[in-house]
Amino acid sequence: MFADPSPRAQDLLQRLRQFFDQHIYPNEERYHREMAEFRRQGDPWQIVPLIEELKPKARAAGLWNMFLPHPYKGQGGLSNLDYAPLCEVMGRVVWSGEVFNCSAPDTGNMETIERYGTEAHKEQWLQPLLAGEIRSAFLMTEPQVASSDATNIQCSIRRDGDEYVINGRKWFSSGAGSPHCQIFIVMGKTDPEGPRHAQQSMVLVPRDTKGVTVLRHLSVFGYDDAPHGHMEVLLEDVRVPVSNILLGEGRGFEIAQGRLGPGRIHHCMRSIGAAERALEMMCDRLQSRIAFGKPLAEQSVWHERIAESRCMIDQARLLTLNAAWKMDTVGNKQARAEIAMIKVVAPNMSCKVVDWAIQAHGGGGVSQDFWLAEAYAHQRTVRLVDGPDEVHRNAIAKLELGKRAAARR
Amino acid sequence: MFADPSPRAQDLLQRLRQFFDQHIYPNEERYHREMAEFRRQGDPWQIVPLIEELKPKARAAGLWNMFLPHPYKGQGGLSNLDYAPLCEVMGRVVWSGEVFNCSAPDTGNMETIERYGTEAHKEQWLQPLLAGEIRSAFLMTEPQVASSDATNIQCSIRRDGDEYVINGRKWFSSGAGSPHCQIFIVMGKTDPEGPRHAQQSMVLVPRDTKGVTVLRHLSVFGYDDAPHGHMEVLLEDVRVPVSNILLGEGRGFEIAQGRLGPGRIHHCMRSIGAAERALEMMCDRLQSRIAFGKPLAEQSVWHERIAESRCMIDQARLLTLNAAWKMDTVGNKQARAEIAMIKVVAPNMSCKVVDWAIQAHGGGGVSQDFWLAEAYAHQRTVRLVDGPDEVHRNAIAKLELGKRAAARR
Amino acid sequence: MFADPSPRAQDLLQRLRQFFDQHIYPNEERYHREMAEFRRQGDPWQIVPLIEELKPKARAAGLWNMFLPHPYKGQGGLSNLDYAPLCEVMGRVVWSGEVFNCSAPDTGNMETIERYGTEAHKEQWLQPLLAGEIRSAFLMTEPQVASSDATNIQCSIRRDGDEYVINGRKWFSSGAGSPHCQIFIVMGKTDPEGPRHAQQSMVLVPRDTKGVTVLRHLSVFGYDDAPHGHMEVLLEDVRVPVSNILLGEGRGFEIAQGRLGPGRIHHCMRSIGAAERALEMMCDRLQSRIAFGKPLAEQSVWHERIAESRCMIDQARLLTLNAAWKMDTVGNKQARAEIAMIKVVAPNMSCKVVDWAIQAHGGGGVSQDFWLAEAYAHQRTVRLVDGPDEVHRNAIAKLELGKRAAARR
Amino acid sequence: MFADPSPRAQDLLQRLRQFFDQHIYPNEERYHREMAEFRRQGDPWQIVPLIEELKPKARAAGLWNMFLPHPYKGQGGLSNLDYAPLCEVMGRVVWSGEVFNCSAPDTGNMETIERYGTEAHKEQWLQPLLAGEIRSAFLMTEPQVASSDATNIQCSIRRDGDEYVINGRKWFSSGAGSPHCQIFIVMGKTDPEGPRHAQQSMVLVPRDTKGVTVLRHLSVFGYDDAPHGHMEVLLEDVRVPVSNILLGEGRGFEIAQGRLGPGRIHHCMRSIGAAERALEMMCDRLQSRIAFGKPLAEQSVWHERIAESRCMIDQARLLTLNAAWKMDTVGNKQARAEIAMIKVVAPNMSCKVVDWAIQAHGGGGVSQDFWLAEAYAHQRTVRLVDGPDEVHRNAIAKLELGKRAAARR
Repeated sequence: MFADPSPRAQDLLQRLRQFFDQHIYPNEERYHREMAEFRRQGDPWQIVPLIEELKPKARAAGLWNMFLPHPYKGQGGLSNLDYAPLCEVMGRVVWSGEVFNCSAPDTGNMETIERYGTEAHKEQWLQPLLAGEIRSAFLMTEPQVASSDATNIQCSIRRDGDEYVINGRKWFSSGAGSPHCQIFIVMGKTDPEGPRHAQQSMVLVPRDTKGVTVLRHLSVFGYDDAPHGHMEVLLEDVRVPVSNILLGEGRGFEIAQGRLGPGRIHHCMRSIGAAERALEMMCDRLQSRIAFGKPLAEQSVWHERIAESRCMIDQARLLTLNAAWKMDTVGNKQARAEIAMIKVVAPNMSCKVVDWAIQAHGGGGVSQDFWLAEAYAHQRTVRLVDGPDEVHRNAIAKLELGKRAAARR
Repeated sequence: MFADPSPRAQDLLQRLRQFFDQHIYPNEERYHREMAEFRRQGDPWQIVPLIEELKPKARAAGLWNMFLPHPYKGQGGLSNLDYAPLCEVMGRVVWSGEVFNCSAPDTGNMETIERYGTEAHKEQWLQPLLAGEIRSAFLMTEPQVASSDATNIQCSIRRDGDEYVINGRKWFSSGAGSPHCQIFIVMGKTDPEGPRHAQQSMVLVPRDTKGVTVLRHLSVFGYDDAPHGHMEVLLEDVRVPVSNILLGEGRGFEIAQGRLGPGRIHHCMRSIGAAERALEMMCDRLQSRIAFGKPLAEQSVWHERIAESRCMIDQARLLTLNAAWKMDTVGNKQARAEIAMIKVVAPNMSCKVVDWAIQAHGGGGVSQDFWLAEAYAHQRTVRLVDGPDEVHRNAIAKLELGKRAAARR
Repeated sequence: MFADPSPRAQDLLQRLRQFFDQHIYPNEERYHREMAEFRRQGDPWQIVPLIEELKPKARAAGLWNMFLPHPYKGQGGLSNLDYAPLCEVMGRVVWSGEVFNCSAPDTGNMETIERYGTEAHKEQWLQPLLAGEIRSAFLMTEPQVASSDATNIQCSIRRDGDEYVINGRKWFSSGAGSPHCQIFIVMGKTDPEGPRHAQQSMVLVPRDTKGVTVLRHLSVFGYDDAPHGHMEVLLEDVRVPVSNILLGEGRGFEIAQGRLGPGRIHHCMRSIGAAERALEMMCDRLQSRIAFGKPLAEQSVWHERIAESRCMIDQARLLTLNAAWKMDTVGNKQARAEIAMIKVVAPNMSCKVVDWAIQAHGGGGVSQDFWLAEAYAHQRTVRLVDGPDEVHRNAIAKLELGKRAAARR
Repeated sequence: MFADPSPRAQDLLQRLRQFFDQHIYPNEERYHREMAEFRRQGDPWQIVPLIEELKPKARAAGLWNMFLPHPYKGQGGLSNLDYAPLCEVMGRVVWSGEVFNCSAPDTGNMETIERYGTEAHKEQWLQPLLAGEIRSAFLMTEPQVASSDATNIQCSIRRDGDEYVINGRKWFSSGAGSPHCQIFIVMGKTDPEGPRHAQQSMVLVPRDTKGVTVLRHLSVFGYDDAPHGHMEVLLEDVRVPVSNILLGEGRGFEIAQGRLGPGRIHHCMRSIGAAERALEMMCDRLQSRIAFGKPLAEQSVWHERIAESRCMIDQARLLTLNAAWKMDTVGNKQARAEIAMIKVVAPNMSCKVVDWAIQAHGGGGVSQDFWLAEAYAHQRTVRLVDGPDEVHRNAIAKLELGKRAAARR
């Protein structure tokens, strides 16, 4: 690729791949075994021993907090462009991100606190998060409304003296299933009658606050994604000090815009990694299966799909690197068209490639014997989280139409 | 539609819809509750009380064994063309087929025994199957080979005196998870060195025969499809009397061809019903959700998808009715092009429509709160069972090329 | 197909196919030669001798005016369902329709005059049209506005005493290039301030009326479609007696709705015929070309396309037959959803199949050596004439959403 | 984009855009007028005065021979990566390339002679070509065989003393219609029985050699593409000195591989420019047309297409730049996967975008009033020239499968 990683990223990449070869791939079966055992016991919402074992190893290997673009107390400092190939590798094994303290939604939450939190917020929450001691959740989407339109948000954040009183119902609060999860960033309305984009605010809500109830998990195509999970959370008269607000009242939309950029591009990087792995599995399977006298890999209908997969993956990767470079050079806000583009392109691409890989595996492809069905479920969901395709396409089109309107003037 | 159902089918259809309104739709939640309770208890492979309650009601309502084209002892006698709209309705609720004794793979198995079994087979197995007292499984696909090429089958059926000795490993043996399941139809090779299509035979194997082990279930995306299930079954020195053979040695391929036609068209009918329901849900959701100041249903991007859904569903239905009519009039073998066509068209169509419906539901669409993700998992699997798309497209193309070669002569 | 033609249609179909074998296919080259000669002479807008020779033969063979559903003075009387397979055959050779007096836009215009004209209109215009002595054009679309929204129409029809005075500019007035073309049906506004659908009227305008100027032809891709042509026509103070109005002032929209149904379904029938021919050519070509050691027809990537073509064609045909049957049984208005559906499905399908056939022919596929590029240009245009896809999808979606809204009440 | 052009390319790009604003766009109508006048006179195969006027201006502006990667006597020297944005601009107006002496197939032919010709060849042919005094054609494809498989080539090059005797029939010899065209590079077989890739040779054949007949032009969707043209050429006992061979006997395949890389990437660069222009036209049209009460640009179905267009264009451009960079850094041969990928991606993308733009223009979109139908015809053809999609997808898949086979070892 003409955007080769920098020497620093190159070095990290090599070490990350080694780590995968030594500690991640060989443990995939163990991970599933440990989770299966939890499920058999009736509670999958537990700390996974394997992850806890591997975290210190990753930290020792210098593979820790690589996602954080602006360094904080010696952590992070890698550009988005350099992080991209690393995050792509993590996309190959869904649970691997946590090993490197690079898993969603913590990465986005950490970056949010780093950018918009006070020093006190950082000491209390960012430090243990960066240390991998606790985890976090982002409570934005609500079950009753189309949440991609932020003005629909119904969660209320009402000031009462020195406290905010929060009432609302959130769902798809990813990560809230984990026993490690101790802090929520909650989006709600402090001023429901204010201007469209100044109604919303974000506050930090410790999970153990009175009135917080994690009701249940939402499944994703039959998967519970435990112990991480996508939870429905009820907030009833939840009280936090006013100092828990991020940036100030009415700035929730602004933070959401800033936060979602990194979250989205990380999803895309992982989607590319998932697609690469699916393509490898597709090729391997096709070369090993014989039907009607020759390997499936000699059928030109599969040549078409392999070739299209390669073309789609490489294009999505280049587009993602381009978006990363824009974020690094002109900032997340100026890169909003580029971020919207990859948010549409990458998961649609990975869904297609994974789906072909499933087809190449026959019945086995939809089963637990291969990683593919789980990957599909996950990638399909990426087309909905952080705004469905339609919202992003709209944004892209409006920018494009705006450019033409300006050009004609 | 210009192929309106016959008066008899029309009458059945009306009564079936009433039954759904009274007994099926209102019980969907109960079904999931009962299954969830089983899962909580650690064993979902149980008889579902709801189904057992409803079966006598369906029988009393004259809605029983409608699938069987050739009448047997007063049961069945409905043509494929007339059964189509009924089966489509059952496709709307995945567990409903069993209530009417019309669920796969029992329908295909019953038809197989009716067509290819001896009188003794029928008395022993067909009668209790038609009475809904037992269930059955079809053991064809194997984990180690591309099973759509029947010459790849490795399961051995070796004659030893008055017995056949069966050794093999099968998977995706649907229905074998149910405690009701008592009889397997097993495809294996009696003559591995024989002509390509005379190597295979089919034998009846009671589930409780020594050497039969149901090893585990295969999941479909994250669903176990219990209590029905898709099982992996090990056959180790399983012995059955030679009289258990269907039709005779070397005729397994022939039976498979005959059996798979009905099985395939039933899948397609259900796919159409699933797509219709998904389209209804899509419309309802779009009309109830507001974003950026207007219902999603007013967005022309959704008009496109609704219109394409309607066009695709109606086309797939007409093609399926056409195939049914051909099966009824010229026989399953002569209708093989038509069956292959719907086997490709119907599940691809339903996957597309269900996927759009998921997108219209946002995050909820992939969760357990709607029927859609489960429907998608099921429909996606239909593209693989009974031969993947590629095998059917191949068959269609070869017939088409053959027609042209003949025309040019 | 389960909708086999009636015996009368079956008989006509057989005779039509014979006529094609004897008189149409063997003359395709001559047609192109005659047209090429006209072009070399600098004027392709001439009567084609071949067509004039064949018309009496077709009439003698009883293959004349088959399109007309309601018999008029012994002509026509074939239902839409019976006409479908005949029209499909005519779709195989673009100029063949005129031979049987079944070519657009004359068919639609004749039906319009038959249904909405006075006895005087019929004697003056319908009779010579049915006799194939003259031809006609339909002047609706305008270059300056999105004409699929009838309220955009700018052509003015102002009453002045016993006359209407017409001013406007029309384009894509198909057929107006022919020297035979003597009568125009013009859509304009008699009451621009009236209710949305009562502003428009239709009047008969003889081509040789003062103020009528046929300005130029519009090409379709690089084809002029002479001598038929798609013309731009200027109407400047064109005066016709008020008796030339069809049905009455303000009823133009109503007539347009009634007229466009038959016009659209005929287009679709021809699209299906075109696709069938393209599929035949695709198969033939693939079987005759060798690359890398085997015929292209053995490549599974082509199996996929052949199979998809067959599935798409058969589905589109069944949907079209279904629409025809609805038009025959419940009327064009009640069949508006069905007509809208085929208007989207059929040309999109034929574009896809023809495009694959082009690909199978390599460079030759886009050239004059095969009929394919011309067919593509024509089929692509059908996606725009009589309303672009988007307008029809909108209509389908609104009907579907309306059904659901009603069902929920 | 993160691959911004170098300062030199940036400067050329700015000047090229100015040149387009001053001399190209304002003359598009004149070009069509001049060609229309030639056609009216009955001979479009003439020198176009406009082009001849503009060539000295372009040369004076330093916008000349920018395509040539390896400098020759002071001409060229721009890398492929730097040439890409320039070539993209030329893709916006199909005839513009010749103005800058950068039009196909001359660019490929010049590069071929530069790389594989003798000093004498260069003096005789390369110099006048670089000076824009003559033009050239590449005679490879044959009407009777699938020419993408070079072993199918039937043209014979037989040595007879000091001469080669050439017999064969070629078609789609682009550029051979121009009166300027004086030299052909002819691919044929010197050793039909030799090893698969050593049978072919390439020789230089002056157009006025005895035995050369330019028979006719092949049209492209109705367009003659005059005066350039795609010609059928007959070679009957054509004799040239043996010194006219390029590189040596049996090296034709090798040259073809080397030549086709640059030719292909230039096509792709132009495809991207064509798509950009189509997207601009689509936006402009949608913003100017009102239907059902609002501009078409407010319909979300068009937002989807605009957004998809932007995503597809940017991805194809990045993939093309990546291929250019590979060609520049590791050579055309090592970049063969990247070249094959863009050869599939770019014209498929541009066909899709141009097709949407046509749809946005209604009937006008297929006519001569907009550039779109012509652009579509051209872009569709690019999917066939220099190897159809299928051949390139095959090559990509085989490389991918090879990588996996190696990885598993």
